[in-house]
Amino acid sequence: MDKWVYTFGAGKAQGNAKQKELLGGKGANLAEMSNIGLPVPPGFTITTEVCNYYYRNNKNYPTDLEEQLITALDNIEKITKMKFGSSNLPLLLSVRSGARASMPGMMDTVLNLGLNDKTVIGLSNESGDKRFAYDSYRRFIQMYGDVVLGIDSADFEEIIEQEKLSNGVVLDTEVSAEIWENITILFKDLVKKVTGDDFPQDPIEQLWGAISAVFSSWMNQRAITYRKLNDIPASWGTAVNIQAMVFGNMGDDCCTGVAFTRNPSSGENNYYGEYLVNAQGEDVVAGIRTPQNLTIKEKELQNSDTMSMEEAIPEVFKQLTNIFDLLEKHYKDMQDIEFTVQKDVLWILQTRSGKRTSAAAVKIAVDMYNEKLISKEEAVVRIDPLGLDQLLHPTLDPNSEKNIVTTGLPASPGAAFGKVVFNSDTAEELANNGESVILVRMETSPEDIHGMYAAKGILTSRGGMTSHAAVVARGMGRACVAGAGDIIINSENNEFISNNIKVKEGDIITIDGSSGEVILGEVSTILPELSEEFNQLMKWADEIRDLKIRTNAETPKDVKVALEFGAEGIGLCRTEHMFFDTERISAVREMIFSDNEKDRRAALNKIAPMQKNDFTEIFILMKDLPVTIRLLDPPLHEFLPREEVELDDLSKKLGKDKSLIKSRVLQLEEQNPMLGHRGCRLGITFPEIYEMQVRSIFESVTEVSKKLNLSIMPEIMVPLIISDSELIFIKEKIDDVALAVEKETGVKIKYLVGTMVELPRAALNAEDISKYADFFSFGTNDLTQTALGISRDDSGKFLPEYIDQNLLESDPFVSIDVNGVGKLVSIAVDSGKKQNKNLKLGICGEHGGDPKSIEFFHKVGLDYVSCSPFRVPIARLAAAQSKIRNK
Amino acid sequence: MDKWVYTFGAGKAQGNAKQKELLGGKGANLAEMSNIGLPVPPGFTITTEVCNYYYRNNKNYPTDLEEQLITALDNIEKITKMKFGSSNLPLLLSVRSGARASMPGMMDTVLNLGLNDKTVIGLSNESGDKRFAYDSYRRFIQMYGDVVLGIDSADFEEIIEQEKLSNGVVLDTEVSAEIWENITILFKDLVKKVTGDDFPQDPIEQLWGAISAVFSSWMNQRAITYRKLNDIPASWGTAVNIQAMVFGNMGDDCCTGVAFTRNPSSGENNYYGEYLVNAQGEDVVAGIRTPQNLTIKEKELQNSDTMSMEEAIPEVFKQLTNIFDLLEKHYKDMQDIEFTVQKDVLWILQTRSGKRTSAAAVKIAVDMYNEKLISKEEAVVRIDPLGLDQLLHPTLDPNSEKNIVTTGLPASPGAAFGKVVFNSDTAEELANNGESVILVRMETSPEDIHGMYAAKGILTSRGGMTSHAAVVARGMGRACVAGAGDIIINSENNEFISNNIKVKEGDIITIDGSSGEVILGEVSTILPELSEEFNQLMKWADEIRDLKIRTNAETPKDVKVALEFGAEGIGLCRTEHMFFDTERISAVREMIFSDNEKDRRAALNKIAPMQKNDFTEIFILMKDLPVTIRLLDPPLHEFLPREEVELDDLSKKLGKDKSLIKSRVLQLEEQNPMLGHRGCRLGITFPEIYEMQVRSIFESVTEVSKKLNLSIMPEIMVPLIISDSELIFIKEKIDDVALAVEKETGVKIKYLVGTMVELPRAALNAEDISKYADFFSFGTNDLTQTALGISRDDSGKFLPEYIDQNLLESDPFVSIDVNGVGKLVSIAVDSGKKQNKNLKLGICGEHGGDPKSIEFFHKVGLDYVSCSPFRVPIARLAAAQSKIRNK
Repeated sequence: MDKWVYTFGAGKAQGNAKQKELLGGKGANLAEMSNIGLPVPPGFTITTEVCNYYYRNNKNYPTDLEEQLITALDNIEKITKMKFGSSNLPLLLSVRSGARASMPGMMDTVLNLGLNDKTVIGLSNESGDKRFAYDSYRRFIQMYGDVVLGIDSADFEEIIEQEKLSNGVVLDTEVSAEIWENITILFKDLVKKVTGDDFPQDPIEQLWGAISAVFSSWMNQRAITYRKLNDIPASWGTAVNIQAMVFGNMGDDCCTGVAFTRNPSSGENNYYGEYLVNAQGEDVVAGIRTPQNLTIKEKELQNSDTMSMEEAIPEVFKQLTNIFDLLEKHYKDMQDIEFTVQKDVLWILQTRSGKRTSAAAVKIAVDMYNEKLISKEEAVVRIDPLGLDQLLHPTLDPNSEKNIVTTGLPASPGAAFGKVVFNSDTAEELANNGESVILVRMETSPEDIHGMYAAKGILTSRGGMTSHAAVVARGMGRACVAGAGDIIINSENNEFISNNIKVKEGDIITIDGSSGEVILGEVSTILPELSEEFNQLMKWADEIRDLKIRTNAETPKDVKVALEFGAEGIGLCRTEHMFFDTERISAVREMIFSDNEKDRRAALNKIAPMQKNDFTEIFILMKDLPVTIRLLDPPLHEFLPREEVELDDLSKKLGKDKSLIKSRVLQLEEQNPMLGHRGCRLGITFPEIYEMQVRSIFESVTEVSKKLNLSIMPEIMVPLIISDSELIFIKEKIDDVALAVEKETGVKIKYLVGTMVELPRAALNAEDISKYADFFSFGTNDLTQTALGISRDDSGKFLPEYIDQNLLESDPFVSIDVNGVGKLVSIAVDSGKKQNKNLKLGICGEHGGDPKSIEFFHKVGLDYVSCSPFRVPIARLAAAQSKIRNK
Repeated sequence: MDKWVYTFGAGKAQGNAKQKELLGGKGANLAEMSNIGLPVPPGFTITTEVCNYYYRNNKNYPTDLEEQLITALDNIEKITKMKFGSSNLPLLLSVRSGARASMPGMMDTVLNLGLNDKTVIGLSNESGDKRFAYDSYRRFIQMYGDVVLGIDSADFEEIIEQEKLSNGVVLDTEVSAEIWENITILFKDLVKKVTGDDFPQDPIEQLWGAISAVFSSWMNQRAITYRKLNDIPASWGTAVNIQAMVFGNMGDDCCTGVAFTRNPSSGENNYYGEYLVNAQGEDVVAGIRTPQNLTIKEKELQNSDTMSMEEAIPEVFKQLTNIFDLLEKHYKDMQDIEFTVQKDVLWILQTRSGKRTSAAAVKIAVDMYNEKLISKEEAVVRIDPLGLDQLLHPTLDPNSEKNIVTTGLPASPGAAFGKVVFNSDTAEELANNGESVILVRMETSPEDIHGMYAAKGILTSRGGMTSHAAVVARGMGRACVAGAGDIIINSENNEFISNNIKVKEGDIITIDGSSGEVILGEVSTILPELSEEFNQLMKWADEIRDLKIRTNAETPKDVKVALEFGAEGIGLCRTEHMFFDTERISAVREMIFSDNEKDRRAALNKIAPMQKNDFTEIFILMKDLPVTIRLLDPPLHEFLPREEVELDDLSKKLGKDKSLIKSRVLQLEEQNPMLGHRGCRLGITFPEIYEMQVRSIFESVTEVSKKLNLSIMPEIMVPLIISDSELIFIKEKIDDVALAVEKETGVKIKYLVGTMVELPRAALNAEDISKYADFFSFGTNDLTQTALGISRDDSGKFLPEYIDQNLLESDPFVSIDVNGVGKLVSIAVDSGKKQNKNLKLGICGEHGGDPKSIEFFHKVGLDYVSCSPFRVPIARLAAAQSKIRNK
């Protein structure tokens, strides 16, 4: 005989916490608590297998279910010494869903089941409170009518309003027992009118109705959507938990509460919670009455003048905290517990791991290790890496008032305030005068780099989570709110309008890059302070992980931040970012406008000493840590001016006719710059550019090595390779420069030459390419764009719909697309390693800072990931977790 | 003992025609001819292995080479009864390179070797012609000086000029024996002056010098470049052929000539050739004297009044033509033969398969099958498929004069003349009035489709072989010259200037899309006429091939052409091309400017009947042949107006403010349209578009099936798929429409739904996608763009350099990139077939008409290729050849 029903209560249970698949999360925990002897209202769980049977068999139940259910019901009656459907001591039941994963509010619940015209009198007698009994009865009819019979809840509400009106009553609390009784009659009439049948008086019929309603709600639209969004298969099914009702609202010797075994906000090891006397769980949530503190300590801290539970019912409190300790030890985690005291008897209704802030999570994990409750690995694996972002950036003071103008996408975490400016030059100017500025742009482009760098925060009206603004801001650790579509920017008048509020240049706003909020005026922010526990946890993560963590950085400032956050090298130093500096850009443009190699070389010679100096600063900071320098990557037109004033300026500087300048700008334009004349293609058509860059690197390395008495070995990275022949071509030229510099300086230079793997063809030809490469670094941004054929800049028009419709698991620019891009990475890793055992493997795309992606990179066997400086701690933790999870 | 030297002559040889790897092409053929008893001047071949030995051993020779060489030299002396280095009957030698593959003019040759101050007297005596002897001697010194000693040839020429001047002589023919003798002395002085040594008098020393020069020339820059371009490995090496000299210039009983065993122009089975009395091979090539015809027939045909060889020396002629017959039977191919008659004795110097026109190739192949010389397969495999282009398009009358203004890229074959127009509307207008027009544009865009269609030819000043203009023109079978960079178009004045010549609108020009020539005025063209032999050959190809050949077509006119050329279905019917029609484009724009589904549907309802009619026309033509219809693919902004006038117009038509129109146009713009909001992404965000298209298809199919009493099964193709979930989403909607139409009409609809595989992720996920697809069609254009990360439109700035530098084997948009794109195709084929045995597989990119690519598609196991109508015969032939070559 199949077992469909599992009982629990009175110190024992047929199931346990491990049976979540069969009993659902709630059922398994109720069984577990019963097993360890906690006072759980007795009940039973109908398994998820019944749910599946139900759907496979045209909504019919297994024939032997009924018998098992009756037996389980008997068991409750025996324990409670109450009788289901009896007018003496009537047993009432709650019927709740409970799937393997929590799906809060998605499915149906029926409470107070078992009440009818007869049992309501029993309840009244037993509780000595007629008003309570009829209030419960009318609630039951309403809930059952809605959930099981499909009657609109509003129709019931209307009856109540009518009755209150005709009785001259305003608040529910003023409604008398008699009025509630009358309302139950009107409710039953409504049921009869709508369904054509009487409201079921048979408790067993009620029970089956409720069970079917819960199973049916597994397939309601809300639940289907929720499962889609959370990747929960329909095949899991839900269990149904049927439990004896207990009441916290039967008088002043009753109460109900919610507690955490530790402080969920700070993580401190103190009991923390609230309770309400003579109340039901709903009342705590509804917030009509102010709950009282659980402990004296909390009461004092909050200067509360109501009595704490510790004072009011010290014995029950002692009993409760004993249970807290027991449960925390049992589950080895901070618990979130719901309890009810019915006539001085304590009942535990639910326990689960409690939600907590990131700071609390870190503290609790480290404390629990120190308390010998959990291992280092367990401590490390418990922290959500993305949550660390909260700890690393300034946050808004939660006690401040906020005048929110609009909300955009939370594109780069952190909060910042400053004067609004609408262009990058002004941003830089004001910042140089020591002012805080927020740069507001429709969207940003590489030309805005200096302004973004100067600003405290960036606000754009267009673009998504992976727009230029978002990506660069995250890289720089600037707060950014992107795609705030309500904002209309009028750059001529230097103002923006959002929801009828006008904000002018110089006005102060605050943006919260973690929530997307845009706020008028200054809101004070709280600076992050990294706790001892944080440092401890990071140390453990470092001990555990295999993946090295490098950073994407090219300014001394970023490099310093990254080193402080524990970066073990630079995985991507973008040389082109060094080209946008005001001083340099004119030399760069001069080079672009040269029509022969000689003039190009002359212009490049002006840039060379500056590039060399950039590298020197970085090498001095990094000492003997590895530094991967990518040669020029973007198409040349990114360096060109667009606005008339700039064109005039350039025309003057170069002494060339403006029409000539314009036509060259036009000539360099590309239909699809992403797939255009960039990366190593520039190095092949204009070898002198890479030659200058490589020479700057080698000269700098030679000098710094000597100065610091170190042997620095730069890693030179060639972008956009698709074939071995390209790499051979460029490597030959790099080797030539090395030889030349060695000859000039008399110092031997050690260096690596490797390639980005950022186009599908490179991945597919990794075996050939790896013959000539010392390392591969996966450029998963571009690999995503090409493998999926999705331009990151243009994806805003359809990608959100793809995510909504579940056509893609997640934004492939946020978490690596394992089934597409991931396959290319695997192919390249396998065939590259096969050919070249010493091949170093890394990744330097945005995914280097995403925990889900990091787990993939760990599994596929990379040596390191490289991410923006502020992501380094996240990556360290995620790498350790990946190791633990994939042992 | 290794054998380094292979002798031939006097009816026997140590080698044969099969030993091309060892003896080179020339050496192997000389041996073969000796073996079959032809009068070949005796000689020997030093093998390619010696070349490799030479380079592996620091330019030293095997020790036993000298002995073998002396023995071989003895053999020549025995046969010729002449003595190398003797003043009596001196033997002279030619020393020539000869690699496995022909590398014309890339390596060095030395003639008349063996002459010195002593042997020149012997030659003078023997020939009775002192002038001939000293002319030969001075030629030898000059050639040897240049090739072996590295003396600039110009220095020798200068001496000749000086001597002619001081002797009052103008033409070489006027130079007397004495002057030539004096020049040899001056030449030898020059050698002494430049090299410090006397000109070598020892013939054996001369011989070694020449041999080393030939081997060294294998590694000269010219040869290296040629090998790169022609994919010849350096490891093949060259052989050296040393042969007794024969002279066609020793008097009037001598002559020299070149002959073809059949007419290389028409293919007719007549001897064809020219000869010159008392001349050397060089004289025929130099064109100073007009050669005489070989046969009486040719002489009469050309109205020549000089004597034919057939008349002049009938016996030698008879001997020669016997050899022609023998060689043709032996090699089973039309031969190109060089011969010399020295004092009435015939010598054959070379034979090889003769180059021929495409028409001749077809005729010869079919004739030879009829003559039982070759098999059908051999006949089919001999024709260069690309050469058929010559036969299918109009060509310029070769007898016309041509005033060439400039030359661009031969982008789409065929010749055409007409009035110059600069915009598509005018083109259409004039064409409607029955005029021939040539559309001249900087570059074309999808908006020009109607103008390109109306024009006879298209000329652009920008863009490459795979630019929009080129691709569309080839598709339509219009002549096109693209990227004629010399042309400066001034569209305001409606004129273009090229090399200082101004051409105005209305002026007539002729363009030759096969040569790239742009010609002033009208040049008459010759219309193609497909010969009986052509049809015969195509029939054989059809019998042999496995691959089906479909066409890319959407207009009734193109469909008819394709059917005439033997298309077996439509592999790609692009529905968007149907959207550009003047009538429709405004409804399309109305749809784009709708901001809600209702308005979009209203606009789509206007397009629907027109789309349906398009399909009806096609289905009627195609009957029960398969038709694959691709749903809307390009991004919507392609349909938007760009010019102010058009914007005004649209603003009026839609009754919307122009600024609104402009801002919508701006909003739809994309950074990388290639990777943007297009393909099925449109079908997912605006399902009503595909719904309209699919409904049009189904309604049309139902009507035509009924009318023609056929069961037509359309193949609906969804573009730009990257995941199974997209296909599921769209297929569901297609099925819904089918059900609806079935319900309305009462007719059951049969149809297939398949996808383009044109993005790497689709190929990598083919197994999943094939669960829901009836067919895959590889869109290798886009697959190339994404796999290689190269935008076709932007590749002009670097791809030519890539080809030049041999960084890519060939233009990946012309021949499929087997190592990148090919791998993706293989992965998709294998995993798709594994999952879905019935999966139909085709390709509809430009590569479908490229023979090299077709061979790949045959090998990888596709069911069909689809190409533009004019490429259908090429594809039929290439498919047959692929089958034969890969049996």
